Amino acid sequence: MRALAGHPAARGLDDDCAVLEIGGETLVLTHDMMVEGIHFLAGQDPADVAWKLVATNISDLAAKGAKPIGVLLGYQLGEESGRFVEGLKEALAHYGAALLGGDTVGGSGPQALGLTAIGRATHVPVPSRCGARPGDRVWLTGAVGGAMTGLEALRSGAGESAAYRRPQARLAEGIALAPQVSAMMDVSDGLLLDAARMARASGVCLSLDTGAVPLACPESRRAEALRWGDDYELLFTMPAGIVPAAPAKCIGEVLEAPAAQILVDGKLPNSHDNLGFEHYG
Amino acid sequence: MRALAGHPAARGLDDDCAVLEIGGETLVLTHDMMVEGIHFLAGQDPADVAWKLVATNISDLAAKGAKPIGVLLGYQLGEESGRFVEGLKEALAHYGAALLGGDTVGGSGPQALGLTAIGRATHVPVPSRCGARPGDRVWLTGAVGGAMTGLEALRSGAGESAAYRRPQARLAEGIALAPQVSAMMDVSDGLLLDAARMARASGVCLSLDTGAVPLACPESRRAEALRWGDDYELLFTMPAGIVPAAPAKCIGEVLEAPAAQILVDGKLPNSHDNLGFEHYG
Repeated sequence: MRALAGHPAARGLDDDCAVLEIGGETLVLTHDMMVEGIHFLAGQDPADVAWKLVATNISDLAAKGAKPIGVLLGYQLGEESGRFVEGLKEALAHYGAALLGGDTVGGSGPQALGLTAIGRATHVPVPSRCGARPGDRVWLTGAVGGAMTGLEALRSGAGESAAYRRPQARLAEGIALAPQVSAMMDVSDGLLLDAARMARASGVCLSLDTGAVPLACPESRRAEALRWGDDYELLFTMPAGIVPAAPAKCIGEVLEAPAAQILVDGKLPNSHDNLGFEHYG
Repeated sequence: MRALAGHPAARGLDDDCAVLEIGGETLVLTHDMMVEGIHFLAGQDPADVAWKLVATNISDLAAKGAKPIGVLLGYQLGEESGRFVEGLKEALAHYGAALLGGDTVGGSGPQALGLTAIGRATHVPVPSRCGARPGDRVWLTGAVGGAMTGLEALRSGAGESAAYRRPQARLAEGIALAPQVSAMMDVSDGLLLDAARMARASGVCLSLDTGAVPLACPESRRAEALRWGDDYELLFTMPAGIVPAAPAKCIGEVLEAPAAQILVDGKLPNSHDNLGFEHYG
């Protein structure tokens, strides 16, 4: 939504999810799009594409500690709708979400897919990326770099590609962590880029110890893994001294200044450094 | 969703909207996609495209008698995002909906857009297309054919194109009619095609008097106007003797047999007849 962020209609859209109070309940809604050639490879198994479309949206719910209710699908016809539906069904069953409805359209260009996921908050206030406070510790569930090597394996036809093809949303972890965190978001576009977004949203500095970040790829590729997207781990902050309710690694701390920035091993990144995957530009 | 309808994951998706009971309230959710070259012209004013994207989704809510809460936008970057946001803002203000969130993606092919609209039901049970009963009368708000001549005007550069560019969702009408109707849906793909869908969903026959259908185009084009989409009027059924709470014209009656079909001026359409606009297939 940042491409629209300068416009009045789009104010307050710097977060991935909408939070709605309805009849005493708190709903979380998110919408993600995927486009062939950008978010998935042309010719990729449609079942994997469907899985990823679901997992990326469920990951947004996970970061809010929300339990999925269901999804609405925007489906542009592609090859092998049957395979797509198989993957969709598997992913929805895996995350306990129902297919509530949607729309099917034609089209001759690269396939575009959209999914809206609706969930019920398990904890209020619902975690956001705005709540990181100086003195907090910065944590990460799981490891990064797996989607990067998974994509390479898929392209080359050799090696393990599941981390790219079938990402796992940290749903149980997000629900367990929601009552503890001061801020939480999923890492979809690269750890450094998403950490910078959390820093900006919270008006603090996230000082990261990159050597502490667990890797799902060779050590020699650490710098790339920190900037690669699609790993869907949860990045969160909590006051020092709290033990997270889900497995996670402490990878830094929150400082007061310089605000709205990250420090990478104590240094401000050069403004021309690539921090992650920008979907548009 | 019918392209996916043979698959178990997609059962029950023959309706345009999802209805969710949340904390004592009833929510209605809908998702529509629009693709450049199919649902709008390449080079069309993005503000009009945004308006139409909102109006088509609000029209689905209108058919459910639901009052809009907000929308989530799936926005693939195109030319003139600023104009798009202007039209989006106008349409959202017009229908009283908030922009809750969404996703922005890149892409080089025809632009694909998705919108999820969320509304609050004003009447339960929420009207569906399944409730038409033998003896009911068939009604239509407004006229058809305006979008057809509007598209022609837009293409030729001469004449009035607003009905195509800026369709009006029958929101107030849908809310007024919801407590009265036995079935209701919006006419997005052509009156005959959508009537056939209502007949099939309800397991009845809709016998239509096409001469009674109000036209927003010359009489000579009646046959086309009955099959043209994009007019977004409401098609509904009510027991005989009830006066609709919104302006509408009686255009037929519901018969028991032959079920799941329409009769056009007393005759079954030939199975090869085109009844309307199929988005896919």
